[in-house]
Amino acid sequence: MIRTVDYLDGKVVLIDQNRLPHQLVTIELFDYREVADAIKTMKVRGAPALGVTAAIGVALGAQEIETADHQEFMSKLEQVASEIRATRPTAVNLFWGVDRILAAARQADGKPIEQIKEELNELARSMVQEDEDTCRRLGRNGAELLKDGDTVLTHCNAGGLACVGYGTALGVIRAAVESGKRIRVFADETRPRLQGMKLTAWELAQDGIDVTIIADNMAASLMRKGMIDACVVGADRITANGDTANKIGTYSVALAAKAHGVPFYVAAPMSTVDFQIASGEEIPIEERSSEEMTHVDGHRIAPEGVPVMNPSFDVTPAEYISAIITEKGVVRPTFEKTLKLLKGEG
Amino acid sequence: MIRTVDYLDGKVVLIDQNRLPHQLVTIELFDYREVADAIKTMKVRGAPALGVTAAIGVALGAQEIETADHQEFMSKLEQVASEIRATRPTAVNLFWGVDRILAAARQADGKPIEQIKEELNELARSMVQEDEDTCRRLGRNGAELLKDGDTVLTHCNAGGLACVGYGTALGVIRAAVESGKRIRVFADETRPRLQGMKLTAWELAQDGIDVTIIADNMAASLMRKGMIDACVVGADRITANGDTANKIGTYSVALAAKAHGVPFYVAAPMSTVDFQIASGEEIPIEERSSEEMTHVDGHRIAPEGVPVMNPSFDVTPAEYISAIITEKGVVRPTFEKTLKLLKGEG
Repeated sequence: MIRTVDYLDGKVVLIDQNRLPHQLVTIELFDYREVADAIKTMKVRGAPALGVTAAIGVALGAQEIETADHQEFMSKLEQVASEIRATRPTAVNLFWGVDRILAAARQADGKPIEQIKEELNELARSMVQEDEDTCRRLGRNGAELLKDGDTVLTHCNAGGLACVGYGTALGVIRAAVESGKRIRVFADETRPRLQGMKLTAWELAQDGIDVTIIADNMAASLMRKGMIDACVVGADRITANGDTANKIGTYSVALAAKAHGVPFYVAAPMSTVDFQIASGEEIPIEERSSEEMTHVDGHRIAPEGVPVMNPSFDVTPAEYISAIITEKGVVRPTFEKTLKLLKGEG
Repeated sequence: MIRTVDYLDGKVVLIDQNRLPHQLVTIELFDYREVADAIKTMKVRGAPALGVTAAIGVALGAQEIETADHQEFMSKLEQVASEIRATRPTAVNLFWGVDRILAAARQADGKPIEQIKEELNELARSMVQEDEDTCRRLGRNGAELLKDGDTVLTHCNAGGLACVGYGTALGVIRAAVESGKRIRVFADETRPRLQGMKLTAWELAQDGIDVTIIADNMAASLMRKGMIDACVVGADRITANGDTANKIGTYSVALAAKAHGVPFYVAAPMSTVDFQIASGEEIPIEERSSEEMTHVDGHRIAPEGVPVMNPSFDVTPAEYISAIITEKGVVRPTFEKTLKLLKGEG
């Protein structure tokens, strides 16, 4: 199994997700600016993967800072960090990843710079492994919520391709399948970038998991027909009260789930929970290029001259969420209390 | 203004909707089999346009029947009719159009066959004009429901391109704009065939009406933000109780409208109301080719070997519909009563 993102011998290795599902290609990046660009252009995406990639990016940037002075080192590292931070605004994991490397560098004050650089490399590498472990624990926790024979709807890609591997929402599905349950998956194609069609369907099919692609606008209708037993999605940022920013269209799924009595689960590592923000209204929502809407794989589909909207995320209010699945356990409402309790636990 | 479908000098003239928005091309069909094929391949689509095109198709087919015997004429015309009927199952207008021509042919028993052929041609031509008049009346009736400054969401294309001209849902918007109201439109792109993006946005932009394209999965989120004042959609079949089959995704819009207190209007001619069917569960729903999902303009977007679903329509239960707008007036629930009353009126 290829890792979605890895840090090997001073280079970042990424699966180029813009070339899936037609080609499985890994790219190697030797410079943090290339890492920032790969994030911006969504060669790598998905909140947990962004957290790890951002951390690696800062660690990689640290290697090229030539100074023996810790203050100068930190000042230059802050510059690297701010370039990485400026790539995408919504997934909080990205900031979490950057901040972990910066904090380690700060704490290492007094050590030789070369040793600090090596420690940052080691931390970044450990975060790669940690993400895999987190997803597996999260998956096992969430698998308890699915029954043998369930049909699960997911939106966008919260899979191995959104993490180092295994996945969050798809980790829950994988863990259920590994435990012997028969699970059928419907993958929303997820316009405009089609991550559900191009990534989720591809990676589940690779694993031999029963997956069918639907258009986003079919989900409510399938729920009305009783064809969906549960929804499981990922998250880009969960606020202290449980409000969840995730790929545009997630709210529409949550609304339909509630209307039809279908449980709606959010699967995300604790690093996706932003305790600094009280509610979803404060989450910055990225508006991406109109070309993502007007073109598909470089081919224009929209009429010329007509404006489009392209908010990349929406916010699902906590009241629509049945449970949040993390590596530390599954929490139910009221999330303001239960998330805080979870954080407190070792 | 080019008509979407017309019947001139023994030929059917259609705008080829598969080439929009990049090319505005009309095609001429001289044989009813070509008409059936144009319906199947969706060169012409939209319930009212299908009604008129089907009628023209049968009238055109009548012209090539060589007999002086009315019984033989009718038997051959029934064959033509059944080929036209077999093209698409959901829009009831198609059957209505076929049946009007057949009924006229039946009633003309005793007249010379050549005269019957000419009468069928005339009836078909009159149905073209009638559809335009119907849309304009319907539009004026519906325009009353929109306020100056409203932002209206529509799904798929219930525009001039779905009728002979002017449109049903878009007829309502056009009539409101013509009456001096400022109306902004959001057009759901409408996967998989993108009629909202390719047809609705194109035809509204041609008319200088303020239109913005969104992905289907953005609609609920815009409603939550209070950005939508009303939804207006077309219909392929309305049952006696008001349940409405329309393009896949319509139900999702209706669900979101209800959740956010946004009025949800269905605009359709009386020929779309199928009084023979009590409720939406009895409407046959067309499942179209998987290629519509896996390919965009001939370019494969989906991974190989993963199944897709492609139901072309869904059913919105009457309880989600605020009003049905027809050429005979606007009706509110309970539709079982109000639709019947409307039918009774001259």
